[in-house]
Amino acid sequence: MSLRDAGPAALEWAADYLERVTELPVLAQVEPGEIRARLPAEPPEHAEPFDSVLADLENKLLDGVTHWQSPRYFAYFSNTATAAGILAELLAATLNQVGILWRTSPVLQELEELSCDWLRQLLGLPEGYVGHIEDSASSATLAALGAARAAAPGRRAVYTSEHAHSSVAKAGRILELDVRTVPVDELYRLRPELLDLRDACAVVATVGTTSSAAVDPVPVVADACEAAGTWLHVDAAYAGPAALCDELRPHFAAWERADSVVVNPHKWLATPMDCSVLWTRRVDAFRDAYSLVPEYLRAAEDVVSLSEVSIPLGRRFRALKLWAVLRCLGAEGLRAMIREHVRLAKEFESWVREEPGWEVCAPRHFSLVCFRREGSDEENEALLRRVNASGEVFLSHTRLEDRLVLRLAIGNARTTEDDVRLAWDVLRREAS
Amino acid sequence: MSLRDAGPAALEWAADYLERVTELPVLAQVEPGEIRARLPAEPPEHAEPFDSVLADLENKLLDGVTHWQSPRYFAYFSNTATAAGILAELLAATLNQVGILWRTSPVLQELEELSCDWLRQLLGLPEGYVGHIEDSASSATLAALGAARAAAPGRRAVYTSEHAHSSVAKAGRILELDVRTVPVDELYRLRPELLDLRDACAVVATVGTTSSAAVDPVPVVADACEAAGTWLHVDAAYAGPAALCDELRPHFAAWERADSVVVNPHKWLATPMDCSVLWTRRVDAFRDAYSLVPEYLRAAEDVVSLSEVSIPLGRRFRALKLWAVLRCLGAEGLRAMIREHVRLAKEFESWVREEPGWEVCAPRHFSLVCFRREGSDEENEALLRRVNASGEVFLSHTRLEDRLVLRLAIGNARTTEDDVRLAWDVLRREAS
Repeated sequence: MSLRDAGPAALEWAADYLERVTELPVLAQVEPGEIRARLPAEPPEHAEPFDSVLADLENKLLDGVTHWQSPRYFAYFSNTATAAGILAELLAATLNQVGILWRTSPVLQELEELSCDWLRQLLGLPEGYVGHIEDSASSATLAALGAARAAAPGRRAVYTSEHAHSSVAKAGRILELDVRTVPVDELYRLRPELLDLRDACAVVATVGTTSSAAVDPVPVVADACEAAGTWLHVDAAYAGPAALCDELRPHFAAWERADSVVVNPHKWLATPMDCSVLWTRRVDAFRDAYSLVPEYLRAAEDVVSLSEVSIPLGRRFRALKLWAVLRCLGAEGLRAMIREHVRLAKEFESWVREEPGWEVCAPRHFSLVCFRREGSDEENEALLRRVNASGEVFLSHTRLEDRLVLRLAIGNARTTEDDVRLAWDVLRREAS
Repeated sequence: MSLRDAGPAALEWAADYLERVTELPVLAQVEPGEIRARLPAEPPEHAEPFDSVLADLENKLLDGVTHWQSPRYFAYFSNTATAAGILAELLAATLNQVGILWRTSPVLQELEELSCDWLRQLLGLPEGYVGHIEDSASSATLAALGAARAAAPGRRAVYTSEHAHSSVAKAGRILELDVRTVPVDELYRLRPELLDLRDACAVVATVGTTSSAAVDPVPVVADACEAAGTWLHVDAAYAGPAALCDELRPHFAAWERADSVVVNPHKWLATPMDCSVLWTRRVDAFRDAYSLVPEYLRAAEDVVSLSEVSIPLGRRFRALKLWAVLRCLGAEGLRAMIREHVRLAKEFESWVREEPGWEVCAPRHFSLVCFRREGSDEENEALLRRVNASGEVFLSHTRLEDRLVLRLAIGNARTTEDDVRLAWDVLRREAS
């Protein structure tokens, strides 16, 4: 079996999938265990052609796919794998580079450094920030807090807002740091006057929280961190790409004073999973935390390898897709996508505001709208369940001021006003 | 730009690359910074077609590729991205699943659980071991030791051999565990009589060390762990797939008594980077260490999601390639590949033994041969440098009994006896 023989059918399936994804039920309409039960419990003894894999993908697995690629996917934070990113993944798998040392793949290391630097420039972060790619913001935040801990011996507290992502608590558990959650104000922002950083190694501030895309007051937090000698990590995993647009840049005020910043191109930057960029201006702290060079990895070249600033020793060639996306969409194309998503979110927000019996529940800064229907939490939860069971659109929820709130997140490059209109129609239909 | 328009040229490049990879210099013959210097320092403002990416890959980047896909790659642990795995990556990127909760991708979770279970069966691990996929053995070992620490409050020591992989020390640093390295015997195996497990939360034993593919005495270590109530983690990242073959299974004696086991299909199981399988029979300890379910991730289904047993919240659809490789090669095909690699390693070993002035430096259990030329470390290092600079083959080194030793690792599915013979010819030519 070769790429030349089996490749065209696989490519055809992929191209066809993207052309029909809008018509598929967005949330997978299966019960737990249903997909696995369709497949043999025992592994195959004999080789099968790739056509069998494709046939099973179509006939047995597809029902178990929740279609993140659908323009009608509005749950969590929606995303897009663009053709440039997908084809770059094909090439990366073909090259099968393993980044361990620079010499095991010079192109992996240098393109990772370059593409992170390109993105740094696009987002307006200053020179001196050095980036690398992690699999997820969870891993990036863990890596950053590990470096912060190493940089401040004896200080074991981490401050973050009660609305920070759960990965902060998880990193705290792994690193045995004392994560102290700070209450938020009426706009769901961390209240900086409650920071007491004497024993803190780090503060995690968020630009675009997961619940409501709230923006913590980074300038005030940065002042506090600077005064206390405390590491500031900015989590802009979702919202970060918005810094491409001048009119949205003010939300990112003072993030250039952070010690580390994470942004996920696999969320709102048209790049397939997984690609989370972590920049730091304190590379030495990362090396202190993570560098280990055993004899079998000693090399003649005097280059700091990426495995010296992150947890895994080996990494795949994720940079190729980030580089391909930046080139094939261009800054221009990426800005246009982000602006259109923000415009559509504004539209949806205005429909909710104007409709009696509905309420917008949080300020909308980017492409996420938090809203609810009048009535109890149970009624809203039941409404959400009916909407998602229709398969027409997929939304998720959160909890704000102890009320269940619905979330509509726009982030798919193929989403049009018609798709957003459909979401609103389905919501109103199921509510009545 | 669509997959349909841009896909065929990308696929053609990929197929052509695999057909000519044998002719390319195995180790990239560039200087640090050379690749980056060929590319613009600033990001593109305007969109470019994917053809530009392909053209730059060919003309600017290819020199910076160290060709892991070459059958003449014998460094570190060589590997293979087979066509089945590559095409599965194309499909996975197209589907762009994000595994967070079961419902965000039922197919991702169920296929990950199933394909890990298929592999468990093939390797002869008993029922009750539950597997999931990590990006690397480094991450898997970190996750396992984090679970071990949670399972044994107050015990902070980890024992491992002085030949254990550097990821154990790195995990120890992150988890602030006291990693105590135990000396090895004359066969580079951990000396179990030196274990003193009273305050140990874990022992990491290795089947197939990175330096010399030595096999720690897992049965004796398992006894000691059982007596002391200490977590046993078995690192079989490289050698694990050899358990597919009955005649190699004895090397894995007692690994079924481990609390956790890691095997990397991206090393010796024909699967593209990245795919590291971590099994445990103590899922509850992993949940204790890693489960966190915030409101925005609460779901109606009562399913333990994979993010509750590992560090990242979101994961990509790595299972598709493992499942495709197991199907398209079959147990039969995988066994044949492993047996051929072992046979070739035996051949090479016999050539070294028979040649005056050369010496085999460690027992050969699998497909790795450790050897050296008579003379000083400097002479051997210079020899290795000349061999690798030729571009004809690529080998790496380690240090055994304080001597520099060369390593020839066979693991590429396309490697033939002619390729191994070429390595031997180049070594002898450069030595003379």
